[in-house]
Amino acid sequence: MVPHLITALTGPINELEQRMLDSMPAIERWFRLEWMEHTPPFYSSVDIRNAGFKLAPVDTNLYPGGWNNLTPEMLPLAVQSAMAAIEKICPEAKNLLVIPENHTRNTFYLSNIVQLQRIFHMAGLNVRIGSINAEIKKPTRVDLPGGESVLLEPVIRSKRRLGLKDFDPCTILLNNDLSAGIPGILEDIHEQYLLPPLHASWSVRRKSNHFHSYEEIAKRFGKLLGIDPWLINPMYNQCGEVNFAEGVGGDCLKTNVDALLTKIRRKYKEYGINEKSFVVVKADNGTYGMGIMTVRDAKDLEALNRKTQNKMSVIKDGQTVSDVIIQEGVLTNERINDAVAEPVVYMMDRYVVGGFYRVHADRGVDENLNAPGASFVPLAFAESTHLPQPGVKPGASAPNRFYMYGVVARLAMVAASYELEATDPDAEVYD
Amino acid sequence: MVPHLITALTGPINELEQRMLDSMPAIERWFRLEWMEHTPPFYSSVDIRNAGFKLAPVDTNLYPGGWNNLTPEMLPLAVQSAMAAIEKICPEAKNLLVIPENHTRNTFYLSNIVQLQRIFHMAGLNVRIGSINAEIKKPTRVDLPGGESVLLEPVIRSKRRLGLKDFDPCTILLNNDLSAGIPGILEDIHEQYLLPPLHASWSVRRKSNHFHSYEEIAKRFGKLLGIDPWLINPMYNQCGEVNFAEGVGGDCLKTNVDALLTKIRRKYKEYGINEKSFVVVKADNGTYGMGIMTVRDAKDLEALNRKTQNKMSVIKDGQTVSDVIIQEGVLTNERINDAVAEPVVYMMDRYVVGGFYRVHADRGVDENLNAPGASFVPLAFAESTHLPQPGVKPGASAPNRFYMYGVVARLAMVAASYELEATDPDAEVYD
Repeated sequence: MVPHLITALTGPINELEQRMLDSMPAIERWFRLEWMEHTPPFYSSVDIRNAGFKLAPVDTNLYPGGWNNLTPEMLPLAVQSAMAAIEKICPEAKNLLVIPENHTRNTFYLSNIVQLQRIFHMAGLNVRIGSINAEIKKPTRVDLPGGESVLLEPVIRSKRRLGLKDFDPCTILLNNDLSAGIPGILEDIHEQYLLPPLHASWSVRRKSNHFHSYEEIAKRFGKLLGIDPWLINPMYNQCGEVNFAEGVGGDCLKTNVDALLTKIRRKYKEYGINEKSFVVVKADNGTYGMGIMTVRDAKDLEALNRKTQNKMSVIKDGQTVSDVIIQEGVLTNERINDAVAEPVVYMMDRYVVGGFYRVHADRGVDENLNAPGASFVPLAFAESTHLPQPGVKPGASAPNRFYMYGVVARLAMVAASYELEATDPDAEVYD
Repeated sequence: MVPHLITALTGPINELEQRMLDSMPAIERWFRLEWMEHTPPFYSSVDIRNAGFKLAPVDTNLYPGGWNNLTPEMLPLAVQSAMAAIEKICPEAKNLLVIPENHTRNTFYLSNIVQLQRIFHMAGLNVRIGSINAEIKKPTRVDLPGGESVLLEPVIRSKRRLGLKDFDPCTILLNNDLSAGIPGILEDIHEQYLLPPLHASWSVRRKSNHFHSYEEIAKRFGKLLGIDPWLINPMYNQCGEVNFAEGVGGDCLKTNVDALLTKIRRKYKEYGINEKSFVVVKADNGTYGMGIMTVRDAKDLEALNRKTQNKMSVIKDGQTVSDVIIQEGVLTNERINDAVAEPVVYMMDRYVVGGFYRVHADRGVDENLNAPGASFVPLAFAESTHLPQPGVKPGASAPNRFYMYGVVARLAMVAASYELEATDPDAEVYD
């Protein structure tokens, strides 16, 4: 089970929801057995798109920001999950060092850091914030809207350990996805727990690995539920190297976009769906909603203007895009006050702790919402009358809808766990 | 950390509260280390008395009823804890059998059973209710106020397993404290998990064992915090066999009551407390608030009237009292609308999931509140502005107060864990 939140959508009957509710004990048992064999990511968030006819994760973040967008009601769940996570990794822990992103002037982001600090403090740890930003040369207090403040301190690296002045942590929690590459200061730390592991960072991670794992998970889960895995799986293709600025790899891209659009159309036909198919081209190592492009027809790729080419060429921290992933576009049919919305589900250890809607008034149902101008609508806890009632008409109960979101988000979390195992450079191989 | 609830008390400054808040990381780490070595009870509730100058658990229940008194907001925490508990014991579980108390007409109690069923269903189990009441010969649906209903089914015992018709559980959860003795139908079950273990039932358990363990825990915890353990520990004495109806053991009782009253007076003098000391005489194996008597002076014992003698002689399920425990009386200085109140904290696995106030308008500050006429005031979740703020003046923040309650309740839970280890008939002894 997941916390039952109010979702904005109380839309049409959804057979998938009913199937998931009916299978709740089987589903939860399936997850329990997965976690016996695999380690969940320390924390994660998953962007979900609900097209009405299918429901799929489109991005899984292993360095989730935005914890400040969760409601206060969700805090106790987050704290309880944090206790479980810490207990498992380092029960003797006293001190936790959080390493944030380097942007020291983004007060929204820093509010997220304050929230993480609060959660782990309430879980019973001394928490301090260690910046790896070269500009932070001495302890720097940043005031935040609402009267809070955060103290950023420069990290100090000794031969074997990372810490702060007079602060030696047992565990180091990265909230920095290291898009710009793994800095030397974080390498060769063997005496402390560094979480998530460095190969989860965007300097190593590839979306294609994640969705490869997810596809396998979706197939197995589809078998468990007796459903077509496509209902929860966004199909994808891959291209080798593509250089948008120089027009390299364009043919491969066009061929693959065309092939995927054809596959989607076939599926739409099979299910009698009258929607225009589209794909989303994404940087394979991209994050922060950067390097993302909606393509409705392979011909569109011929006419890419300079602006789009540039947009696709450079992602977070100035990294250039080379590999891309072409993903089935999943419409979002959720709305908040007429603005297009997509749910984002937050997890700590194996537990769903909450979520919110990402809302963008200026974007279409087939566009990326993670872009400047997006706002966040926290999902409030359900009232008692909204507790999931297995007898309730599918689609008519918001908490039941959210249960389904929590299941799909956790499937993506299982996929991330497999992905990290497969890409672990220190994995022991038994061949 | 525990869920931060609104408590009714925002009383005077309390040094103990400040000490606990300041020591939060040390306290949480202490609990984490305890749970590495010891197994928490599956679920528990603890009655707490707050005298203003001391705070102590006075009863630890290992078969907690009253789950229906928790607010809907607490459900997600309870479910998450239930998931953790099940995961640990029997991750492959599909089916859970709950065995309730035998009173089939107490709809308040049965609402508690419905709530437990709901919690474990949401944790992903098929949950059914198996009665060991001989009157339940066939599946019997009982309607409850509020439109809910509960289906009580007769348990079926095979040579090795306990179940229902067409229902074979992996785990059997007792919500029946077996005061009347362990029925044969529950004996020799080795293939299924029977929780809590039979030696936790009141047919075996003794309050004196629990408070002996608690005293040790309080001493160690007192050392951790640098406080006098008396501030969190109710002192106690024991008497051998006492027969109130026949006047046997009266001298021993008087001597021990007198000795304990003297010890309390000495402590009151040490701390400059101007309150009248009292003790509470309790059946060592009693529960349900039965077999409990407040004594302010050993002389009072000479003049016990017939009614009190009878009240003390027989407890739940008609069991006679033989052994008694004499416990330091702890005033409760909490009030809700002028009625005397005491907090009750609920835990599942190692987690505090919520609580409520037991309120009794007709009882004094030195009396047992667990008696007919008591009502329950759920502790609502704290508002965001009430989240614990280490800087807040002690005693002025209700959530900070509740953190302290959660710590003391968990100390009692650790004590219960030690108690169950010490009394485990199947324990392996390494001598």
